[in-house]
Amino acid sequence: MRYAVLGTGIVGRTIAAKLASLGHEVVIGTRDPQATLARTDPDGMGNPPYAVWQADHADVLLKPFAEAAALGETIVNTTAGTAALTALDAAGSANLAGKVVIDVANPLDFSAGMPPTLDPVNTDSLGEQIQRAFPEAKVVKTLNTMTCAVMVEPTRVAGEHNVFVSGADTGAKKQVTELLVSFGWPEHSVIDLGGIETARGTEMLLPIWLRLMGTLGHADFNFHIQGAR
Amino acid sequence: MRYAVLGTGIVGRTIAAKLASLGHEVVIGTRDPQATLARTDPDGMGNPPYAVWQADHADVLLKPFAEAAALGETIVNTTAGTAALTALDAAGSANLAGKVVIDVANPLDFSAGMPPTLDPVNTDSLGEQIQRAFPEAKVVKTLNTMTCAVMVEPTRVAGEHNVFVSGADTGAKKQVTELLVSFGWPEHSVIDLGGIETARGTEMLLPIWLRLMGTLGHADFNFHIQGAR
Repeated sequence: MRYAVLGTGIVGRTIAAKLASLGHEVVIGTRDPQATLARTDPDGMGNPPYAVWQADHADVLLKPFAEAAALGETIVNTTAGTAALTALDAAGSANLAGKVVIDVANPLDFSAGMPPTLDPVNTDSLGEQIQRAFPEAKVVKTLNTMTCAVMVEPTRVAGEHNVFVSGADTGAKKQVTELLVSFGWPEHSVIDLGGIETARGTEMLLPIWLRLMGTLGHADFNFHIQGAR
Repeated sequence: MRYAVLGTGIVGRTIAAKLASLGHEVVIGTRDPQATLARTDPDGMGNPPYAVWQADHADVLLKPFAEAAALGETIVNTTAGTAALTALDAAGSANLAGKVVIDVANPLDFSAGMPPTLDPVNTDSLGEQIQRAFPEAKVVKTLNTMTCAVMVEPTRVAGEHNVFVSGADTGAKKQVTELLVSFGWPEHSVIDLGGIETARGTEMLLPIWLRLMGTLGHADFNFHIQGAR
């Protein structure tokens, strides 16, 4: 499978590296590849600039959003949530139509400082916004409820824990579940919540997730629905 | 300890019965005791009318909100979230001042149908609203993230799972934690999230909780933060 991962941050890099390690072709999409490669400062969380990561992952291509999305058979949105619709617009609806679009982003709004709030929230979600904006895409919301290291290496958290999938298309959710299993998630740990509107519930886990990260002092934790089976 | 439980619904009854079974004095608060006792229809979830429950729990008193709150050394708010501030106003700030007020309610708004939304949400919470309205009360938000049967009998859900506490007053949270332990919660299962503003995070668990109840077909589940210790 050829994947287009939209976004050059730590989430996109982590998922791209995992996909490549599993033998998939991977192209990362960004607004302006030259500008992305020209950055020399670490990001706000202290991650090294993209070019450093790219040098270690020469098998992963870096292309403008539209070119990446055209190449990808499956799309993974890892952009900052508030930039996701702009990035997907740049990717182009024709390049998303008929494809599975895995939405990993959370619509965190840091404009009023910490802790961030969610926008949209409660009566809408980023997953639904993306599905409405690109009705021919098969949007599946998943993996947005944990740190990216855990997304691709669930055994970082000992014991049973869960990953959620939300989306209208059963076949798309089946494909995404198979991908999650290839990442190391036991099939029984994948909870299908239903339609894309259930992304409201998973996105609204972010406030307690962020608080728990502060309380626990680390991010290697995850939600486990005890009693689910 | 003498407890005032505000609210005559299934949550209030369940907590009142548990407190009484542990040897506490319990008075339930309601707007109009005569009206509460006169109801003969089951509630919207099929629970029997209050009078049926009262007949089986003659040791639990039923009083108007203010009288109940005056009698209670600790207050437990189990009213419907959208009615909580009105009920607490009726209880009276003088009857809450200096006391621990345990807020179990969620501000679910069913006015636009199912699923309910939260009001307030995201930038505020019911827990914070109550603390602001009654600054002399020691508000602790807890137990609002599970079905009431699990609140008072955590072993209904096999394995490890968690209950959260949020509040400004350390002594109040210690008292509430001791109460939770007396309900059967292992002390290590109680996660102190910090101040009352962290109630935003636990109240925002409700959308996924409600969806999970639908998906799983039962309510005997709970959140477990895997990797928390």
